[in-house]
Amino acid sequence: MPLKNQRILLASRPIGSPTLENFRLDTDDAPEPAAGQLLLEVLYLSLDPYMRGRMSAAKSYAAPVEVGSVMEGGTVARVIASRHPGYAEGDIVLSHSGWQRFALSDGTNLRKLDPAAAPVSTALGVLGMPGFTAYAGLLTIGRPRPGETVVVAAASGAVGSAVGQIARITGARAVGIAGGPEKCAFVRDELGFDAVVDHRAPDFARQLAAVCPDGIDVYFENVGGAVWDAVFPLLNPFARIPVCGLIAHYNDAPDQPTGPDRLPSVMRDVLSKSLTIRGFIQREFADQRPEFYRQAAEWIAEGKLRYKEDIVDGLENAPAAFIDLLRGRNFGKLIVRVGHTG
Amino acid sequence: MPLKNQRILLASRPIGSPTLENFRLDTDDAPEPAAGQLLLEVLYLSLDPYMRGRMSAAKSYAAPVEVGSVMEGGTVARVIASRHPGYAEGDIVLSHSGWQRFALSDGTNLRKLDPAAAPVSTALGVLGMPGFTAYAGLLTIGRPRPGETVVVAAASGAVGSAVGQIARITGARAVGIAGGPEKCAFVRDELGFDAVVDHRAPDFARQLAAVCPDGIDVYFENVGGAVWDAVFPLLNPFARIPVCGLIAHYNDAPDQPTGPDRLPSVMRDVLSKSLTIRGFIQREFADQRPEFYRQAAEWIAEGKLRYKEDIVDGLENAPAAFIDLLRGRNFGKLIVRVGHTG
Repeated sequence: MPLKNQRILLASRPIGSPTLENFRLDTDDAPEPAAGQLLLEVLYLSLDPYMRGRMSAAKSYAAPVEVGSVMEGGTVARVIASRHPGYAEGDIVLSHSGWQRFALSDGTNLRKLDPAAAPVSTALGVLGMPGFTAYAGLLTIGRPRPGETVVVAAASGAVGSAVGQIARITGARAVGIAGGPEKCAFVRDELGFDAVVDHRAPDFARQLAAVCPDGIDVYFENVGGAVWDAVFPLLNPFARIPVCGLIAHYNDAPDQPTGPDRLPSVMRDVLSKSLTIRGFIQREFADQRPEFYRQAAEWIAEGKLRYKEDIVDGLENAPAAFIDLLRGRNFGKLIVRVGHTG
Repeated sequence: MPLKNQRILLASRPIGSPTLENFRLDTDDAPEPAAGQLLLEVLYLSLDPYMRGRMSAAKSYAAPVEVGSVMEGGTVARVIASRHPGYAEGDIVLSHSGWQRFALSDGTNLRKLDPAAAPVSTALGVLGMPGFTAYAGLLTIGRPRPGETVVVAAASGAVGSAVGQIARITGARAVGIAGGPEKCAFVRDELGFDAVVDHRAPDFARQLAAVCPDGIDVYFENVGGAVWDAVFPLLNPFARIPVCGLIAHYNDAPDQPTGPDRLPSVMRDVLSKSLTIRGFIQREFADQRPEFYRQAAEWIAEGKLRYKEDIVDGLENAPAAFIDLLRGRNFGKLIVRVGHTG
């Protein structure tokens, strides 16, 4: 009896926030590997804010997912059949198999994982794309110096939690922004940030100013929205703003929002404070990945780099979990357990 | 009979565009140099857009001029009396003596000029702060590569003309934006830009796109305003935007203009195209000045770096000339001839 594949397809493009109707669960026979191919069983699927961009037809740094195609995504998978000389049955790999149970691969863009070195799910989080985004963006663009103040939002999330902890490792002060008392307590008590502010507080901007008495030298921008308005007046001369995400805007309509137009005042500050605003995608810094894997594993072993995973069971629950992610309802790196990982 | 000094004071802070009423001509006896001091006679006064910022009380990278004080400004001056061992009567220096005929100096922040090497007025333009702004901003932040497209507005002006010509020296394509047929002809025919577009043309944005068939890799931002809206959609991935001025906004009211709010769409492009927006003031790069003086003089001698001066006679005409500068009515580096330069 052939293996049954389950796949989650993009059913339609969302207008504003995605809904369950934008996704469709499809069931089919699992594919058979041809010569040179592997059959992969997905164990873990990563859910990340960037996927919202792939659901839209708008031009971005990557091509959109076509309507009717499998949703894209990073995955940890087990080789269950191999007709490829480089891989054996039972190997665990990082792959980009998307939102499905089984997938073929010709071996390109796979990375073998060592289950003895770290839980393999970390290859989707702290030891994967989000952790590397934090590492490369903070150290290459943000370049915090000892004693400087680094601010990051979504501080309990996959990227933000690593940004703040790496900032502290470099000797900078880490100030986190998170939503709700539970996340704030985690950022302060478990991750060891120097300060944390709840963006839901009515006096959020005032609180942020209070915990940044020397201003802000690096703002790692991964959310956009109202946080920006509170951060911007606090930026110091020569502050650096690595921009890796704008989750608050991912569901915006494509037309421009009503005013006031904030651009002129932002540009005036860019000029008068000699600010640097720099968008980036982690793969631009791919040559730093080997050093990141080595360094981050060491920091984890030393207890300096902690992480939290938010694991949802069952591929069929991925759409609802993704919708919640865009609303900030996850707590830690959001991962879907797809296959039998025991 | 003592020398009579003339000074132009800031009479009041402008609201919006400066008017003649914001300035006051004051006459007094020229000061006498004490031991260790020099008396300078100003020959040339530089008028530059940044001075609009100094007229406002708003926080910026430099302290404002106080109401009732002499307007600040870079000057070329002759030493007419010296009680300082380092300077002799007749020396020509670059100083920051402001909008006045005579000024004292204790010798700090002076630079001796060699009238045989270049016309001394060039120390206020192509061989001075505007030329160095172009050089440092373009080469250090813009970093054009051969074949890339560099766009600069106010291309017949002191900064813009140098930006485009230095871009061409590095092997990049230079596209200028200027106002009116006379300035456009100068940029194309005299300065040798690869293309020029008149921002007054009704189809300016379409014309700009037509002369940038491969997009824009470096936008040297020295004007702001409507030019930005035409440039922004044409930026290539990894484009760099050095920001040294926003003349179109200098007269804006301090409150935010009505919408639409362009900031979210700009930030989306920053992210999706990995753009770099970087404000700067040339003095940040002061350690590059010796190399600039050497290199720019060589380029001028070789005919690769041309310049145009717009000289207004008489200190009393400085306020009107400055008001016109902010309206783009100058043609070339605006300089006031204050003293007898013959």
